[in-house]
Amino acid sequence: MKFYDYGMAPSPRKVRMVIVEKGLDIPTEMIDLAQGEQFSDAFRAVNPHCTVPALSLDEGQVLTESEAICRYLEEAHPEPPLFGRNALEKAQITERIRQLELDGYLAVAEALRNTAPYFKDRALPGTESYAQIPELGERGRQRTQAFFSKLNQQLENKQHEWIASDDFSMADILAYIIVDFAKRIKLSPAEDLNALHQWMASIDQRASAQA
Amino acid sequence: MKFYDYGMAPSPRKVRMVIVEKGLDIPTEMIDLAQGEQFSDAFRAVNPHCTVPALSLDEGQVLTESEAICRYLEEAHPEPPLFGRNALEKAQITERIRQLELDGYLAVAEALRNTAPYFKDRALPGTESYAQIPELGERGRQRTQAFFSKLNQQLENKQHEWIASDDFSMADILAYIIVDFAKRIKLSPAEDLNALHQWMASIDQRASAQA
Repeated sequence: MKFYDYGMAPSPRKVRMVIVEKGLDIPTEMIDLAQGEQFSDAFRAVNPHCTVPALSLDEGQVLTESEAICRYLEEAHPEPPLFGRNALEKAQITERIRQLELDGYLAVAEALRNTAPYFKDRALPGTESYAQIPELGERGRQRTQAFFSKLNQQLENKQHEWIASDDFSMADILAYIIVDFAKRIKLSPAEDLNALHQWMASIDQRASAQA
Repeated sequence: MKFYDYGMAPSPRKVRMVIVEKGLDIPTEMIDLAQGEQFSDAFRAVNPHCTVPALSLDEGQVLTESEAICRYLEEAHPEPPLFGRNALEKAQITERIRQLELDGYLAVAEALRNTAPYFKDRALPGTESYAQIPELGERGRQRTQAFFSKLNQQLENKQHEWIASDDFSMADILAYIIVDFAKRIKLSPAEDLNALHQWMASIDQRASAQA
């Protein structure tokens, strides 16, 4: 098994946090996205989509979507569970993941991809060229602010120890990474969003957050 | 258990197909989105996000994301499996689902939501108001066409009986629904995309496709 990683990007970081939470030791290779190394012939042979993370399995298959990789690691190494212990918990965590992706991750990604000069003509991930849409960038920024407020409110009213269950879960990892990812568009939660800051601080302490 | 459904929309249809594939019988209530019934007080009490599908569980919780609902039904009724039989199959199906959603479902949804007069100021699902972005609508149409070609190519080169495994899976259900959903933006696969048309025809025969 081999993990293709890149320090700065949110999706590989999600996988890194899962690896540390589960106490796994997986050989890792860095793909320097800032240098365009994802478009090299060597990496194209691993992942034709030219994206990280990627997980190359011993059987020869390569997984190239972070959620697929995280769920694979969960199946192969169930403890500690990050996707829930029973049907209801699993559904509730899946549901929070979907909402976090649509309302949070995509908001930040849209803002970044449609405004940063670095992503000119690469407004979507992958090998196809798409022009930036400034209006979409602006909408992404607004949605990111709305996401912070909503997340804070949900944390104030939460019925579990963590975001989606009494166990620390994939929903916490994803939300934590999104808030950090928003630094790339120079946005961070307002100081008075106390529940959000408290929850962030409790994750900052975990070894996986340093990975 | 109660399933909140609406005939025309793609996400509830996904759940309906899962219900039929698994041979389940779940009490169902129609929420007429065309009449704005999702914004009624009665439905808001079930799902404050004002979206269908929703699945109200006997324990009182309500699931409101189609993927969470489908995975819940899979956990509760594992046969026939729609998300894979082992860790590798599960990861490969999850991976295809993610790609289909990002490249297919979101492309059609962006085109529809950003061009149809019906969705004026509701360019994103839910209760918040977002203005349409015509450029995003146009990009969605282009991406939908690219999606058809890519799906056809993937079906030509597929290594399994179906899209992501030798079993008919959630990836087939999702892709089938996306191609149908594209009719809402008046796009359908070109006649010469043979592998795509053949695969569609084989799903048309299934009872779940009529649901």
